[in-house]
Amino acid sequence: MFKRNLALFLDFYELTMAQSYFRKRNPIVFFELFVRKLPQNWGYLISAGLEDICEYLLNFHFQKEDLDYLRKKGFDQKFLDYLKSLRFSGDLWAIEEGEFVFPNEPILQIKAPLIEGQIFETFFLNTINFQTLIATKASRIVKSAQGRPMVDFGARRAQGIDASLKVARASYIGSAVGTSNVLAGKIYHLPIFGTMAHSFVQVFPDEKSAFKTWLKIWGKDTVLLVDTYDTLKGTKNAIEATREVIGKKELKGVRLDSGDPVFLSKKVREILDKNGFKKTKIFLSSGLDEYKIDEILKKGAKVDAFGVGTSLAVSDGAPALDSCYKLVAIKENGIFQPKMKIAEKEKETLPGAKQVFRYEKDGKFVKDVIGLKKEKLSGKKMLVQIFKKGKLLYKPPSLEKIRKKVSQNLKKLPEKYQKIKNPSSFPVKVSEKLLKVKKEVLKLIKKKS
Amino acid sequence: MFKRNLALFLDFYELTMAQSYFRKRNPIVFFELFVRKLPQNWGYLISAGLEDICEYLLNFHFQKEDLDYLRKKGFDQKFLDYLKSLRFSGDLWAIEEGEFVFPNEPILQIKAPLIEGQIFETFFLNTINFQTLIATKASRIVKSAQGRPMVDFGARRAQGIDASLKVARASYIGSAVGTSNVLAGKIYHLPIFGTMAHSFVQVFPDEKSAFKTWLKIWGKDTVLLVDTYDTLKGTKNAIEATREVIGKKELKGVRLDSGDPVFLSKKVREILDKNGFKKTKIFLSSGLDEYKIDEILKKGAKVDAFGVGTSLAVSDGAPALDSCYKLVAIKENGIFQPKMKIAEKEKETLPGAKQVFRYEKDGKFVKDVIGLKKEKLSGKKMLVQIFKKGKLLYKPPSLEKIRKKVSQNLKKLPEKYQKIKNPSSFPVKVSEKLLKVKKEVLKLIKKKS
Repeated sequence: MFKRNLALFLDFYELTMAQSYFRKRNPIVFFELFVRKLPQNWGYLISAGLEDICEYLLNFHFQKEDLDYLRKKGFDQKFLDYLKSLRFSGDLWAIEEGEFVFPNEPILQIKAPLIEGQIFETFFLNTINFQTLIATKASRIVKSAQGRPMVDFGARRAQGIDASLKVARASYIGSAVGTSNVLAGKIYHLPIFGTMAHSFVQVFPDEKSAFKTWLKIWGKDTVLLVDTYDTLKGTKNAIEATREVIGKKELKGVRLDSGDPVFLSKKVREILDKNGFKKTKIFLSSGLDEYKIDEILKKGAKVDAFGVGTSLAVSDGAPALDSCYKLVAIKENGIFQPKMKIAEKEKETLPGAKQVFRYEKDGKFVKDVIGLKKEKLSGKKMLVQIFKKGKLLYKPPSLEKIRKKVSQNLKKLPEKYQKIKNPSSFPVKVSEKLLKVKKEVLKLIKKKS
Repeated sequence: MFKRNLALFLDFYELTMAQSYFRKRNPIVFFELFVRKLPQNWGYLISAGLEDICEYLLNFHFQKEDLDYLRKKGFDQKFLDYLKSLRFSGDLWAIEEGEFVFPNEPILQIKAPLIEGQIFETFFLNTINFQTLIATKASRIVKSAQGRPMVDFGARRAQGIDASLKVARASYIGSAVGTSNVLAGKIYHLPIFGTMAHSFVQVFPDEKSAFKTWLKIWGKDTVLLVDTYDTLKGTKNAIEATREVIGKKELKGVRLDSGDPVFLSKKVREILDKNGFKKTKIFLSSGLDEYKIDEILKKGAKVDAFGVGTSLAVSDGAPALDSCYKLVAIKENGIFQPKMKIAEKEKETLPGAKQVFRYEKDGKFVKDVIGLKKEKLSGKKMLVQIFKKGKLLYKPPSLEKIRKKVSQNLKKLPEKYQKIKNPSSFPVKVSEKLLKVKKEVLKLIKKKS
């Protein structure tokens, strides 16, 4: 997004390690990025962020001012000279944007000299973690809305500007219909939405004259915010203003932004219908998330579309994924030795470079198998090659294509994995060959430590 | 931060309203930004973000490509010509960075033509909301650590790059000692920290040889990560490696990143002490927040410093503030008419341009009073003027000064408001004059609607 060079966006330890590797050894290694477990109530993740990863790796280089800064921090001149000419020279595989990801499945896999693998860690994690989080959150909200349109209203509550842009893009991937964020609309060519705030109503002598002014400028294809003073009176004012200005019983919508949405939406629907505004839609915003939308729809709320801000923009309830980036293999004596971390049972990782195989039956996803990278299994290989020897092989698809892919994928994922509360766990198996490698590595580690 | 022009970073409705105002009326108004209520268990907020607000307003202008985009979205050429020459021309008051803020107190107050007041809304909210959130979260974590050093480890889990930078800056304001984020260190001149990851240990034939290599390069003033395989064996390996390479019982620290921190830190302390490494510090990271730190210290964990990532970077548990930005007065017939929103009791606002008065007694803060802007009360005026007629009057203080101010303020705030669980509510009164204005406005609104 921001074209600033982000080479220095890393954790300090990546550089201290890199200098150590530079002095001692810089073998070819595999690192993999994966999510250990899903947030509570989440049954799947939708991969997002790969396009930014491609751009980052393509542009990766340290600038003079970066190196000057590092020199002041005590790094060696020889090491800095090495960094100066450092570009990404390795291979990258990834699960494409818009595809499902489940726990322990590598989303990114890099094969590169150790130093490169190490210093991309922070950017990789930050990018995949956040965008995957938001794409998934958006899809959960749309699910709860039973397919009704949902717009990203999160710009003001997102965690920074960059976050707001990524939220708009990732929510669109995750089935939002668009965003209120104009900058995001411009950058990503997203549909943008919005009409008026309470302040608009407040600057006029009364609500009805505010609505009339608005309708004169914007016509009937607009949405009037009816809850500045009293929602039901506001609805009547909207109807009267439309009759007086438009002359027909035609108004695109009214928006409710406070109060009891079940009670008010039913009442507003009644008033609209009774007055012949049957086609006028009711938009709801304010404090919504997938659980509230589910609840109010179950209680019969008459809402046609939703604007969701805070809970979408920060993924409230699950504001980060339990993602990690681990060394899984090192080339030693000409062959790749699988590696793993074992200190804590919960954080134990699967060793070796892997592949994710996805199985379908009768048009539905039935299971994934995590196997060795070189294993030949019949499922679809989910990790596809993105870079080869530092060259980008992959052409990121358009957002529209990714969004369509998400919609197709959601149709293939059985309902029980999509429930917004207590979903079943999608079956992710580990291949026998991989399990065997794991046992061998464990034995070896126990000897060593 | 990012020098990109952010004029288009706004919600679409701000522009549709602005075009309506452009055609109809553009009076001088007051808007105020405030937080309705604090997150659960939070007793105060520490204001942050003002420096970015200053930079934004100073640089605010629409570029040609912005206007081209808006033209395609259907805005009038006359309005676009107006936007082309639009610069901030108003006055701004703010509570300075590092000062406490309590519910309903204006943090920002702008007096400007309505269109300007409206189109800054999203940037103002996004900026103040997030940075205030993180500065406060950091101070809560340091509180739970009973003053032990705490480092921001959140770069990989922050919600985007921009977020990670703001997290580093705001946590430093909120009493963190520094960050692992190198780019943030460079930009904001923050102390940066970090040593090694598990992957470093894994690339060597065994743990001890990894430590020896490290010590040969970095010397004794370093921290060895001892939990890659087995924490207690790792500690012994660290001791042996130090003896062999350094030749003295001197090592800055060891870091634990998994397992039971109470049990392990006590055991590691024992092993270190028994072997004469009494001055070696124990650093703890992984899954910490203010509640966990409080809990493990109460259970006697022997930890000297903390690295906190996810929960700090996304303010887990409270990932957004309930902030809003409301029109509070309009100049009509030559005088300012106070305005408020009433649709829902909970969201009712205080009308009119206000001032926050803070009272001290015996070196402690005792209460705040929210009064009318022109009221003369004896408390310290917390809203200070930042811009006058579009000119910046204010010189943002250095980060070091803001951080020091926070430390002084925390000493003045009685303990009961600083508790990390169930703090008392700091008394925020509303002045009699302001209450009277509110009653009058309410009467007026009821007549109108």
